[in-house]
Amino acid sequence: MELWFSERHTKNVQFSIRTDKQLFSAQSPFQRVDIFESVEFGRFLTLDGYMMLTEKDEFIYHEMIVHPAMAVNPDIENVLVIGAGDGGVARELTRYASVKTIDVVEIDEMVIDVCKKYLPQTARGFDDPRVSVLIQDGLKYIRSVEDRYDLIIVDSTDPFGPGEGLFTKEFYGNCFKALKDDGIMVNQHESPFYENDAIAMQRAHKRIVKCFPISRVYQAHIPTYPSGHWLFGFASKRYHPVGDLDEAKWNGLKLSTKYYNTKLHAGAFALPNYVWALLKDVE
Amino acid sequence: MELWFSERHTKNVQFSIRTDKQLFSAQSPFQRVDIFESVEFGRFLTLDGYMMLTEKDEFIYHEMIVHPAMAVNPDIENVLVIGAGDGGVARELTRYASVKTIDVVEIDEMVIDVCKKYLPQTARGFDDPRVSVLIQDGLKYIRSVEDRYDLIIVDSTDPFGPGEGLFTKEFYGNCFKALKDDGIMVNQHESPFYENDAIAMQRAHKRIVKCFPISRVYQAHIPTYPSGHWLFGFASKRYHPVGDLDEAKWNGLKLSTKYYNTKLHAGAFALPNYVWALLKDVE
Repeated sequence: MELWFSERHTKNVQFSIRTDKQLFSAQSPFQRVDIFESVEFGRFLTLDGYMMLTEKDEFIYHEMIVHPAMAVNPDIENVLVIGAGDGGVARELTRYASVKTIDVVEIDEMVIDVCKKYLPQTARGFDDPRVSVLIQDGLKYIRSVEDRYDLIIVDSTDPFGPGEGLFTKEFYGNCFKALKDDGIMVNQHESPFYENDAIAMQRAHKRIVKCFPISRVYQAHIPTYPSGHWLFGFASKRYHPVGDLDEAKWNGLKLSTKYYNTKLHAGAFALPNYVWALLKDVE
Repeated sequence: MELWFSERHTKNVQFSIRTDKQLFSAQSPFQRVDIFESVEFGRFLTLDGYMMLTEKDEFIYHEMIVHPAMAVNPDIENVLVIGAGDGGVARELTRYASVKTIDVVEIDEMVIDVCKKYLPQTARGFDDPRVSVLIQDGLKYIRSVEDRYDLIIVDSTDPFGPGEGLFTKEFYGNCFKALKDDGIMVNQHESPFYENDAIAMQRAHKRIVKCFPISRVYQAHIPTYPSGHWLFGFASKRYHPVGDLDEAKWNGLKLSTKYYNTKLHAGAFALPNYVWALLKDVE
């Protein structure tokens, strides 16, 4: 039997994965949730038909959304994670003994339940007692929070559907307010390559630049996302993402990582000229 | 009408591009040669059904296979290019006034003719009087050359079919011999992500390490190649690819590039841990 999952990266580009089985499929109040089994990527989660993570390459996304900020400020204690119902961000954060609280605010309980059942590789992030899960709209949650977090990680879906509000100026402004004086916000920033992704990336960057004094973008190779060239935003009240990197301290922690290292950290912020041009356009 | 070109990146992963028209298709003595027209990527060239280049993203590959070596040794004068029948490597090299001769050795004349007709964006590289084209097997050509080139660029197809010999120890040894005392060899090095590509990458790296005192690997985001995470090998008799980078001199040339810059140069050599591990395995 041939069973292929296909995602349109644009209306003219399609990426397809041979699957063994569809392990789960349901409509939550927010989105369609599916889990597939595949030979190439292991299990993978899709939301509304868009690839969220595969067992084979989720380590890249989760390491790169967590470790750069932790290496810039090793004193981070209180972290807010918005989205990330798969548990992968929490898993990486729990590796730091210095982290005291991790609040995960996920709008869709079904994502958490399904990941706990089918994707224990990421969902074990929820097992740590420092992790609190709040089933709530992150956009609303953040409105009432002030001066509480050292780090906010916005692990949103794409800027349409339930994740849409997480790309607005109101939301970024509230993140600023929820952060302490030396707070950092990291968000997934879409991709620079295909036109619609690049427009979303520029829109997010423009809004973040208006809210934070320091706002830089870094990149990673994530093969199962459109174009494989994925960006993250590093926004901060005080720390420079490269100048304030404490290489020795982070390396002293002896964390074993498969993608991230402190040399790559600086390299990830060295963007291609065409990406710089897209960012400069909106700064 | 729906007309899709599809390439299997592995037997379980497929990448498809909506095409408007097939502009050319023929069997040469070496391989099947096709040119397609598409909305997303402009025209693209495939050999034996494998993506070689698209008008949209070829700039990334061609800038990254040429400029890092030129920035490390700005005195490069005589260059050998093996493969590269599309002219893209020659085009980037001709931008340097200091380069005196560019010998392009391509086994398949049909590739050159077809690219001249359908892909003038890359094939204009052949128009410069410093470029000499030799229709010959690069593997044979290199055997008789000694101490002649400052730079050899191996723009091979994949390590099967006509490009197979360009991944052998004999070939790399002959490249070493054909280079001057401070010569540099750059080769396309496949990808670290999918298993078979990673094995080919390791095999090439192992052989190059045995032939050259300095052998490093660097990366670029090339969306239309498998996984989008593509590697290049930088092998050298004398120059270190990062330590000997002459940033000021290269920037003084005022070349306008869309991907490469000298900050990205250093970043491109900062590989993810899992790629380091694959390379260390065979060193």
